[in-house]
Amino acid sequence: MFTPATAEQRFVLDHIVRLSEISEEATPDLVDAVLEGAGQFAAGEWAPLDRLGDTEGPRWSEQGVTMPTGFAAAYRAYVEGGWGTIGSPAEFGGQGLPVSLSIAVLETLGTANMGFALAPVLTVGAIESLAHHGTPEQQALYLPKLATGEWTGTMNLTEPQAGSDVGALKTGADPVGDGTWRIKGTKIYISFGDHDLTDNIVHLVLARTPDAPAGTKGLSLFLVPKYRLNPDGTPGAANDVHVVSIEHKMGLHASPTCVLSFGDHDDCIGELIGPELGGIRGMFTMMNNARLNVGLQGVQVAERATQRAVAYARERIQGVRAGAPVAIVEHPDVRRMLLRMKAQTQAARALVYYAFGQLDRGRMGDAAAAARVELLTPLAKAHGTDLGNEVASLGVQVHGGMGYIEETGAAQHFRDARITPIYEGTNGIQAADLVGRKLTHDGGAALLALLAEMRGDAEHADLLRLIEACEEVTHHLLGAETDDRLAASYPFLTMVSVAVCGWLMEAQGRIAARGEGDPLFLGMKAAAARFYVEQIVPEALGLKAAATAPAALLYSVDAAAFAV
Amino acid sequence: MFTPATAEQRFVLDHIVRLSEISEEATPDLVDAVLEGAGQFAAGEWAPLDRLGDTEGPRWSEQGVTMPTGFAAAYRAYVEGGWGTIGSPAEFGGQGLPVSLSIAVLETLGTANMGFALAPVLTVGAIESLAHHGTPEQQALYLPKLATGEWTGTMNLTEPQAGSDVGALKTGADPVGDGTWRIKGTKIYISFGDHDLTDNIVHLVLARTPDAPAGTKGLSLFLVPKYRLNPDGTPGAANDVHVVSIEHKMGLHASPTCVLSFGDHDDCIGELIGPELGGIRGMFTMMNNARLNVGLQGVQVAERATQRAVAYARERIQGVRAGAPVAIVEHPDVRRMLLRMKAQTQAARALVYYAFGQLDRGRMGDAAAAARVELLTPLAKAHGTDLGNEVASLGVQVHGGMGYIEETGAAQHFRDARITPIYEGTNGIQAADLVGRKLTHDGGAALLALLAEMRGDAEHADLLRLIEACEEVTHHLLGAETDDRLAASYPFLTMVSVAVCGWLMEAQGRIAARGEGDPLFLGMKAAAARFYVEQIVPEALGLKAAATAPAALLYSVDAAAFAV
Repeated sequence: MFTPATAEQRFVLDHIVRLSEISEEATPDLVDAVLEGAGQFAAGEWAPLDRLGDTEGPRWSEQGVTMPTGFAAAYRAYVEGGWGTIGSPAEFGGQGLPVSLSIAVLETLGTANMGFALAPVLTVGAIESLAHHGTPEQQALYLPKLATGEWTGTMNLTEPQAGSDVGALKTGADPVGDGTWRIKGTKIYISFGDHDLTDNIVHLVLARTPDAPAGTKGLSLFLVPKYRLNPDGTPGAANDVHVVSIEHKMGLHASPTCVLSFGDHDDCIGELIGPELGGIRGMFTMMNNARLNVGLQGVQVAERATQRAVAYARERIQGVRAGAPVAIVEHPDVRRMLLRMKAQTQAARALVYYAFGQLDRGRMGDAAAAARVELLTPLAKAHGTDLGNEVASLGVQVHGGMGYIEETGAAQHFRDARITPIYEGTNGIQAADLVGRKLTHDGGAALLALLAEMRGDAEHADLLRLIEACEEVTHHLLGAETDDRLAASYPFLTMVSVAVCGWLMEAQGRIAARGEGDPLFLGMKAAAARFYVEQIVPEALGLKAAATAPAALLYSVDAAAFAV
Repeated sequence: MFTPATAEQRFVLDHIVRLSEISEEATPDLVDAVLEGAGQFAAGEWAPLDRLGDTEGPRWSEQGVTMPTGFAAAYRAYVEGGWGTIGSPAEFGGQGLPVSLSIAVLETLGTANMGFALAPVLTVGAIESLAHHGTPEQQALYLPKLATGEWTGTMNLTEPQAGSDVGALKTGADPVGDGTWRIKGTKIYISFGDHDLTDNIVHLVLARTPDAPAGTKGLSLFLVPKYRLNPDGTPGAANDVHVVSIEHKMGLHASPTCVLSFGDHDDCIGELIGPELGGIRGMFTMMNNARLNVGLQGVQVAERATQRAVAYARERIQGVRAGAPVAIVEHPDVRRMLLRMKAQTQAARALVYYAFGQLDRGRMGDAAAAARVELLTPLAKAHGTDLGNEVASLGVQVHGGMGYIEETGAAQHFRDARITPIYEGTNGIQAADLVGRKLTHDGGAALLALLAEMRGDAEHADLLRLIEACEEVTHHLLGAETDDRLAASYPFLTMVSVAVCGWLMEAQGRIAARGEGDPLFLGMKAAAARFYVEQIVPEALGLKAAATAPAALLYSVDAAAFAV
């Protein structure tokens, strides 16, 4: 029930990311080897554990978290196969290949086992933070182990009283006097906060130093290993970090979501990453990458849900066409659902990969690309995960009654997907980021440049209309009051995301029309592109009213009226 | 966390159903007494079991199904309170009040405990079938017990090989020679197929008599009691019906979904309801009502999810406005989500109640109303449940990370809601029914009459545009080939449903503007109506492209291409 989406990944890497422009090392042969090898590995080692991760799940005890049967071995195989090293810096044992290639591997792992693949995602966040803000000593001690995945990383932001509002964090850090810090506080929603996969875990913890100012400006970022390192770099004495509990979640059971207590015995020792009070910058380095990777989870769950629904629809015989019993894939409304699933999955992939491609280009010094990935991050995170949820829900629907029975597997994807619009900044926070920082920071320059480029390429009349509507709403919002911008932010984010996806899908349709490659693949690509541009793009035109509606209506009633 | 939506129900009964025109008995005092009494009962007896139904759930053993702790007592209280009798025929112990009033009670019960409230829904289906098609003897023996809820009813349609395609059913019925029939076969997805709430269960079973033609024309409807009746009408010997298993579902755990085996020992005795080969008519009597009631489940879950999200948003402090910490209900995008939840819940309620009002009028001899409820049934079922799912998902989102934790309760509504677009005919089947039987049967007369009435009332330009677009697409589809009609059916169903909801919401907004009543309630009603007409109606305009797109694109690729 799992097939790596190799042909589709290669097509998007070739034509949307244009990987050959980014890296000379990433030759077609190497790309093929990576995609196919990752596919084989994921199908053989990780996909078979997907359902077990859901049904058995991790177990908590006083001693820590035990992963479900088989996960430790499958993780070791991942480390030994070098699958974590692809995008990591070459100077620390990584292969230094483009991030856009490494996320194709991550997509495949997550399509096979979405909850499990969160461990590498968080590790990448830790690598990014250390690579950008760590001292040479920290980098030398930690990065080689993180690059291979021998150790995993975590992000410790949220506290019970501080969810979306990180400025309200209270966890404290006191100087020990030897350059290290004593950390004390409770963090919640820590994915892979504890597990038995590796012999150390590197916690990145946002905390507040003495006399730090209130709000986000008072935060610093700390590195807190589960086991402190011996002078030779091997894990030594246990640090004072304890797993208080793991959450009972609706889905994504393979990922243990921990409540971590730091410094119960006043003996939790951490090191600063970057300067004191530089925590928010370190956090954004860690989070921005993570946000794109959560967008990628939308692709993962959409791909898996689509594969499962297609397989079921091709095998389930029900009803009659032209006098003969047929599989339900032959019925028009089932085909409509399946083509929509294909189109939305491809659109999400194009959007997220395109953003990662801009990330790679930005790192090569392309300032416009660097600005563009900043702009695209909230779109990729929010719209990518919205699409993952839509597709997973359609996947349940295609199965009919069987979709609601847990043994079928479609329900797991639906449950797994539902966290993605929430974590790493809710999609509402992404929309606020888009109309706030991303739009006003440059007076809309990056967005208007993107829309102008899209307008130059677009062919279909409805796509052109949508792009023009986005331009119009952008100008409107640039002149609007904060509340009005925020009230319109979510429909605006969706409009712009669909326009970007429509642009990328139409471009892929043009390339498919050239007919170079597998006719079955190209036929589906062309059909999905047409469906997207002709049927999904017009839906987004319907959002213009909401994207220009002022906030006044929302505040025309008192909060108490909502409870009447 | 549960408040009966009494003010809203009364408003809709007064202004949308216009109950006073339907029944002289349903005086304002009586309506108040019913709504408030049902609210108190549901809050006191059923709502407290909602979470237990989810976590503990029914248990299966060889002896049958045991409901979770407390359910049997809560069900007895329901029977003793007479809450099942409101809409049942007076000649069989019911109160003979309008169905539209009885469903307000059912809404309240289902908002309190959605899975539990499915038992009364199925019982109503059995009552309808017997009242329309049963012999006087059958009616005398069974209806009084079903009317009070002392016995419950079930619907036995689906078989493993026959889901949406009831023509493929295989369960057989052989004449015994004394007027009764020997039933043999396996039925799946039987809600409340067994339980320990009552001392008998009345199974309605679709089966095939010897030499019956293939397809739906060969079906007959049978009454198969769990315990055969003694001559005095009391339950006697056990019939040969066995619960093979109960399903492990994603949600709606309080409702045991059974696999029932009839006639394992060739001793399952049933009686015909209606004529031999008249099963499909009996099934539609049972199903049509059930379809509207499933639409009502959309209202129930939307109402409950909204209440929970509003309560959380008013109490969760996060972030700052005007320099002071605020509850998240004060943030624009959270308000947008909550107002959308309110508007969609009210829209779903208006649609479903309006359909039930037409049902009552049809029964009083109004032929146009009878035609209209036929037309509205697929809209109420499909769009009502789509809205239930949308609102339940927004409810999770408003909670942020807490929404994904099962203990919060928001996740349960999201899981519970997901079955409603599937059972009693998937929403795709509803869309096919709309563009098939409902549209072509009268050349579009009932739909065009409704749209003309709506056009006469509509004031907002976008609502008028949407109604005109619906008219245009209706004419287009009337002239279209079957496949093209089916390919467009789902977006068309959504467009028309939103237009009907827009019409009903705009009308409510006008009434609220008169200012007669609680200002807090009327203010929210006016805001929800404006939000619906100004922001949700335009979205549906975006569906016109899909509602006129031919099927050719769907069939431009081979089924195998979906797996590439």
